[in-house]
Amino acid sequence: MSPSSELPLVGLSEIVAADRRFAGRIRRTPVLHLDAPVSAPGRTTERLPELLLKAEHLQMLGSFKIRGAFNAIASLPEEVRARGVVTFSSGNHGKAVAHAAAVHGIKATVVMPDTAPDVKIDGVRALGATVELVTPERRDVHPYELAERTGAHMVHPFDSREVIAGQGTVGLELLQQVPALSAVLVPVSGGGLISGVAAAVKAQRPDVAVIGVEPELAADAAESLRSGERAVWPTEDVYRTRADGLRATSLGTLPWAHIRQLVDDIVTVSEDDISRAIHGLACHGKQLVEPSGAVAPAAFLCGRYVPPAGAGPVTAVVSGGNVDPALVASVLTAQF
Amino acid sequence: MSPSSELPLVGLSEIVAADRRFAGRIRRTPVLHLDAPVSAPGRTTERLPELLLKAEHLQMLGSFKIRGAFNAIASLPEEVRARGVVTFSSGNHGKAVAHAAAVHGIKATVVMPDTAPDVKIDGVRALGATVELVTPERRDVHPYELAERTGAHMVHPFDSREVIAGQGTVGLELLQQVPALSAVLVPVSGGGLISGVAAAVKAQRPDVAVIGVEPELAADAAESLRSGERAVWPTEDVYRTRADGLRATSLGTLPWAHIRQLVDDIVTVSEDDISRAIHGLACHGKQLVEPSGAVAPAAFLCGRYVPPAGAGPVTAVVSGGNVDPALVASVLTAQF
Repeated sequence: MSPSSELPLVGLSEIVAADRRFAGRIRRTPVLHLDAPVSAPGRTTERLPELLLKAEHLQMLGSFKIRGAFNAIASLPEEVRARGVVTFSSGNHGKAVAHAAAVHGIKATVVMPDTAPDVKIDGVRALGATVELVTPERRDVHPYELAERTGAHMVHPFDSREVIAGQGTVGLELLQQVPALSAVLVPVSGGGLISGVAAAVKAQRPDVAVIGVEPELAADAAESLRSGERAVWPTEDVYRTRADGLRATSLGTLPWAHIRQLVDDIVTVSEDDISRAIHGLACHGKQLVEPSGAVAPAAFLCGRYVPPAGAGPVTAVVSGGNVDPALVASVLTAQF
Repeated sequence: MSPSSELPLVGLSEIVAADRRFAGRIRRTPVLHLDAPVSAPGRTTERLPELLLKAEHLQMLGSFKIRGAFNAIASLPEEVRARGVVTFSSGNHGKAVAHAAAVHGIKATVVMPDTAPDVKIDGVRALGATVELVTPERRDVHPYELAERTGAHMVHPFDSREVIAGQGTVGLELLQQVPALSAVLVPVSGGGLISGVAAAVKAQRPDVAVIGVEPELAADAAESLRSGERAVWPTEDVYRTRADGLRATSLGTLPWAHIRQLVDDIVTVSEDDISRAIHGLACHGKQLVEPSGAVAPAAFLCGRYVPPAGAGPVTAVVSGGNVDPALVASVLTAQF
């Protein structure tokens, strides 16, 4: 038994506390219907339940990340919070920490690789954070040194109880919004989102299936759950997927403890499945999502997760919508 | 005083009755936040209230039209309904009548101009309706002859109490969803949608501004409200706008009675405003909408309707999302 499985998991009360801390400053995102055709080769699709979308791409800043970042900062004792926060991210988590820090009137430093595109660096700066650019090799070291030196609190993107509790509010809302829910599909990267959702859902409705979804090209979590040992994939491997929000090379320690105890299965989708899902979400659902945000719906739309006969509605968490319009334009005009 | 202003208007009880008839078979569409920049030349935009979207493009079949069509058919006495329904439409109303008829197990005939694209004809047929193609000149005559000959009931796209009452459920939901509402922006074509919304809103909250929005190139209703006389525009004029759902040449008689008594103002938007709004809705709101569906948000985003200082949130009704993906792709990659 690995040590991680002995870590106490995040409890429902912590997730409810996060929801209270939000106090209306984080959006309760809608659940949308998706009337897209399902292509599940060799399987009868006529009796499939409806696919619903938990629309976190419509969350503030375009992704679920603000939930965890906000809760992590709001949970800090005032004297700790006053010293500011630090994090590392080239994506949605950096923006989320910058915004949550600004709301709390404290300083945020976001460490980003010097290879990050200007638009992402400018996006974080526009939210009031200080950006420190480092070489990719220094990315995992520098933030901790910085926290040590300045006394700033590290807001880890996923390996944090408070972040997991914040992301768990997605599951809390979902059970209220879809009482007949039979399964929820959640994209997996470092594992913070699915850990929180699983903690919220399983505490209340152990009968609801919590299914992780990963790109085939970054399937370390699927491998971990199958083997029982946390897998680590090479960076160059996980960077092959276009789902740029799902390129973590391994699960966090705390997420791994949640996933091995609470998650029913982790399925994988191909790059072609992701493109088809982006297309289906746009043409049938009228929603523009980023590739990482299309991964969970892709598992249903492309038959990678087929619910049992007679099951109630399935919800896929659309994790984010921060997509380059040119990418969506190219997918919209592609033939499937 | 024109005779139309003496017609009794649709009352709140008829709209509430429509909502009851839906019995969950029509979606209660979500209200979405739109964090898009406002370009109102020469005006301070910093103090503008938030723009919300009543997302009828996420309604069943992709537009609000099912509300009116469903209510019209559900309201019929059983022996009348059994004789079937007929309507004329080359767009969303035809699909709505076809679907509502299928739900009620009755026959629907949709008269369409023989110039309609195959994809629209096939769309109506796929919903189980019979399509009769006529020359554009016969479009307004043939459906009435057909109704006369077969005993089928005519479901007019907008000049009908039951259709107006059905569309009014948009306003009913909106007041529940946005209690602090200060104004609602509604696209105007034949006038059925704005009549229903105005009837629902003004009966409960006369302080909420109900503002119509039309393309400059099809602004017969704006002219009518200004002059006090119902204007009729030439077909070739209104066909200049890309908002193909808003090409009615004049208001219906019953809508005109509602609009002159209940609507506060009708503003117009340019074709460029419509393109900017499609772009803003996609890039900032992650929503794909048809040009007609972008017209009401355009009035706010382009400064054609500027709410008074200190006003509460404004909601724009996004009427539909049935758009050619290639059109959206071209707007997504355009520079504004």
